[in-house]
Amino acid sequence: MLYEHLIDDCLAKKIGEGGLSEETFERSLAATEPALARLRAARDDGSLALLALPARDDDLALCRPVAEAYRATCADVVVLGTGGSSLGGQALVALLGGGLMAGSPRLHFVDNVDPASFDALLASLDLTRCGVLVVSKSGGTAETLTQFLILLPAFEAAVGRAGLAERVTVISDPVASPLRRLAARYAIPCLDHEPGVGGRFSVLSNVGLLPALIAGLDVAALRAGAAEALDRGLVAAKESPPALGAAIAVGLSGERRISQTVLMPYVDRLADFALWFRQLWAESLGKDGLGTTPINALGAVDQHSQLQLYLAGPRDKMFTLVVLDTAGQGPGVDPALAEEEALTYLRGRSLGDLLQAMARATADTLARNGHPTRVIKLARLDEKVLGGLLMHFMLETIIAADLLGVNAFDQPAVEESKVLARQYLSEAGQ
Amino acid sequence: MLYEHLIDDCLAKKIGEGGLSEETFERSLAATEPALARLRAARDDGSLALLALPARDDDLALCRPVAEAYRATCADVVVLGTGGSSLGGQALVALLGGGLMAGSPRLHFVDNVDPASFDALLASLDLTRCGVLVVSKSGGTAETLTQFLILLPAFEAAVGRAGLAERVTVISDPVASPLRRLAARYAIPCLDHEPGVGGRFSVLSNVGLLPALIAGLDVAALRAGAAEALDRGLVAAKESPPALGAAIAVGLSGERRISQTVLMPYVDRLADFALWFRQLWAESLGKDGLGTTPINALGAVDQHSQLQLYLAGPRDKMFTLVVLDTAGQGPGVDPALAEEEALTYLRGRSLGDLLQAMARATADTLARNGHPTRVIKLARLDEKVLGGLLMHFMLETIIAADLLGVNAFDQPAVEESKVLARQYLSEAGQ
Repeated sequence: MLYEHLIDDCLAKKIGEGGLSEETFERSLAATEPALARLRAARDDGSLALLALPARDDDLALCRPVAEAYRATCADVVVLGTGGSSLGGQALVALLGGGLMAGSPRLHFVDNVDPASFDALLASLDLTRCGVLVVSKSGGTAETLTQFLILLPAFEAAVGRAGLAERVTVISDPVASPLRRLAARYAIPCLDHEPGVGGRFSVLSNVGLLPALIAGLDVAALRAGAAEALDRGLVAAKESPPALGAAIAVGLSGERRISQTVLMPYVDRLADFALWFRQLWAESLGKDGLGTTPINALGAVDQHSQLQLYLAGPRDKMFTLVVLDTAGQGPGVDPALAEEEALTYLRGRSLGDLLQAMARATADTLARNGHPTRVIKLARLDEKVLGGLLMHFMLETIIAADLLGVNAFDQPAVEESKVLARQYLSEAGQ
Repeated sequence: MLYEHLIDDCLAKKIGEGGLSEETFERSLAATEPALARLRAARDDGSLALLALPARDDDLALCRPVAEAYRATCADVVVLGTGGSSLGGQALVALLGGGLMAGSPRLHFVDNVDPASFDALLASLDLTRCGVLVVSKSGGTAETLTQFLILLPAFEAAVGRAGLAERVTVISDPVASPLRRLAARYAIPCLDHEPGVGGRFSVLSNVGLLPALIAGLDVAALRAGAAEALDRGLVAAKESPPALGAAIAVGLSGERRISQTVLMPYVDRLADFALWFRQLWAESLGKDGLGTTPINALGAVDQHSQLQLYLAGPRDKMFTLVVLDTAGQGPGVDPALAEEEALTYLRGRSLGDLLQAMARATADTLARNGHPTRVIKLARLDEKVLGGLLMHFMLETIIAADLLGVNAFDQPAVEESKVLARQYLSEAGQ
């Protein structure tokens, strides 16, 4: 099993009135059936491209040569892109835990336009041994275009015009756009952004998997895990972890005024996964005055930052702890160093024991104090499990959107500020 | 001036009914006067140690030799500690923007107990050229003790018993504790944690400033900026930025059901500052069912992740954007590359222009849509300005606690889970 999905501590019958009543739970769960039926139909008829990704391989045939060339020639690879063009890749590559696999290029996800950071990164790179990915679904994202337009002359000076075509790859919609035209001008190869897959759902497409391939991850296992979670998710609601999760989240927001959902992995390698989820949930549900605020936290460290508020502040949060079995992992504490009475509890214990005990204690304390708490237990963390988690949360988000009656796939509100930013930028030069 | 503090877009008279009414604003602001009076008295009679820190230098005399020794002999310095023992130092060192100053050791803040991360870090370090700081106010923090107990044998093997005393420094309360006894056993020097200063208020004590000195920061300027913000803050409420900020935050939480406060710097170097604030606000106010949830965001990148929710989701948030003047910073876009009509707005613009336009557009769009939005404008970002921001937010938090009627300086709720974690850990070995 990829993961255990434990929801009892979200229910009133278990944790008291902070939890979801049986009645609302049943009603909310039943209400997920139409979404599940539509998702099953969309999987079968191929009308939702996201659901077809786990079983595909043809698109990877185009990615593999790029990844192999970058792995053979580059010490660093810069990924230009923001939001859904970056967070998926970051979540995947984080699986390697900061220390990349020996022989793999270092990946740098440049998702902001802070000139100080950009200059510092450029100064640290040997551009003659550097690859670049430029990811923008629309081909018109101001941040990504600006990064690219500024990088281009420096990069051309380092690798020559011919080098650009070898060392730069664009991922963008297969339609005309400023980015596509720029790429054509320099004969830079373009891969198609999966047309029917929005940025925040693109982690299992080339947007996430090309960086993963460059980093040396097993992308087939990522997709296999996603396929398994898809199969396990598109069943009857009572057996479907994503339907159960969506029913609880939406049920609690209505019945108990739960306005914030905290995703708190007790694994450093899942910190970026929580940031990926934060975009997915916020942009998919935050519309029409609805949606709950996704909050990324990290155990055990945020016990020393946020737990006081979580336990004793307003009862407006639900919690999802992602807990990896780390028992016995890492070296143990030498009993001779922990002789004194006050340290008895640490004798022979490892960091993994401590992390696990912290996670269990936090989950239990939240539940004992009546806060709805879900635990996702992982026996291991690898590409397959991560692929499963990614698919789980995409399905949960889509089902939650259906329960709320909002469109999971658009983000209409951000247009106003984009227009304004362009206007201010135009004026700035006058 | 260290910073401009612009609050008009939080007020109903400016942004409509999403903002604070004039009546509540006046009442809330007047209610900050007793807290301001107490803070002024505490500054004058020395009864609140935090307020005395900016003018002190005696404590730094003990830090400087340690920092100089580490700078002379170490390539890396590991800081063991969690929560308030780590977040302040991280916020300060982030001012260097990832690329540390030439000749300074790399700092590694180890604030979690993930065995994979810990092992990867240890494997990457040359322990013979490494320094260690161990920070725990109580001297009994399970995570920090475990990290230290596991590191000790490996470190002793690398540098010898005598090396431990030269390369390890403890910061802890000047009372008996497991950590103090362990240090004594190995003749490891201990600096006193400022007794009257809690972890989350300790950034301007040796807890934050020793790492800052090791990294090569100008700590005198940090304290000078804090002193200036203190002087500017402890005046009549109408002139006091922290009192105005607290009055607005608490007023909005009561009048407009604002349950979340988003701190969104448009500067990468302030991302860790926002995490520091997140602990400060959550642990200080999150009690008795009160407090709002602090949310750290980062501009412009989170426009592509959270802005849709911020604009179109529930009206339960207030926003503080921290905007640095970055106009013209970084190289500009070559107009020859941006010839086409769709790119006109980018011709000659730099990343700094773009970042600034994004910040302004987001602030204006939030306000136009009736979301309470404060802007803190920085003409520059250096030690002095950062010191001022740190003091501003500590004062704002203390004043907000007073308005809510909670104790800003305790965190009683986390005890239950600590006890439970020790119990689980003890049981795990049986």
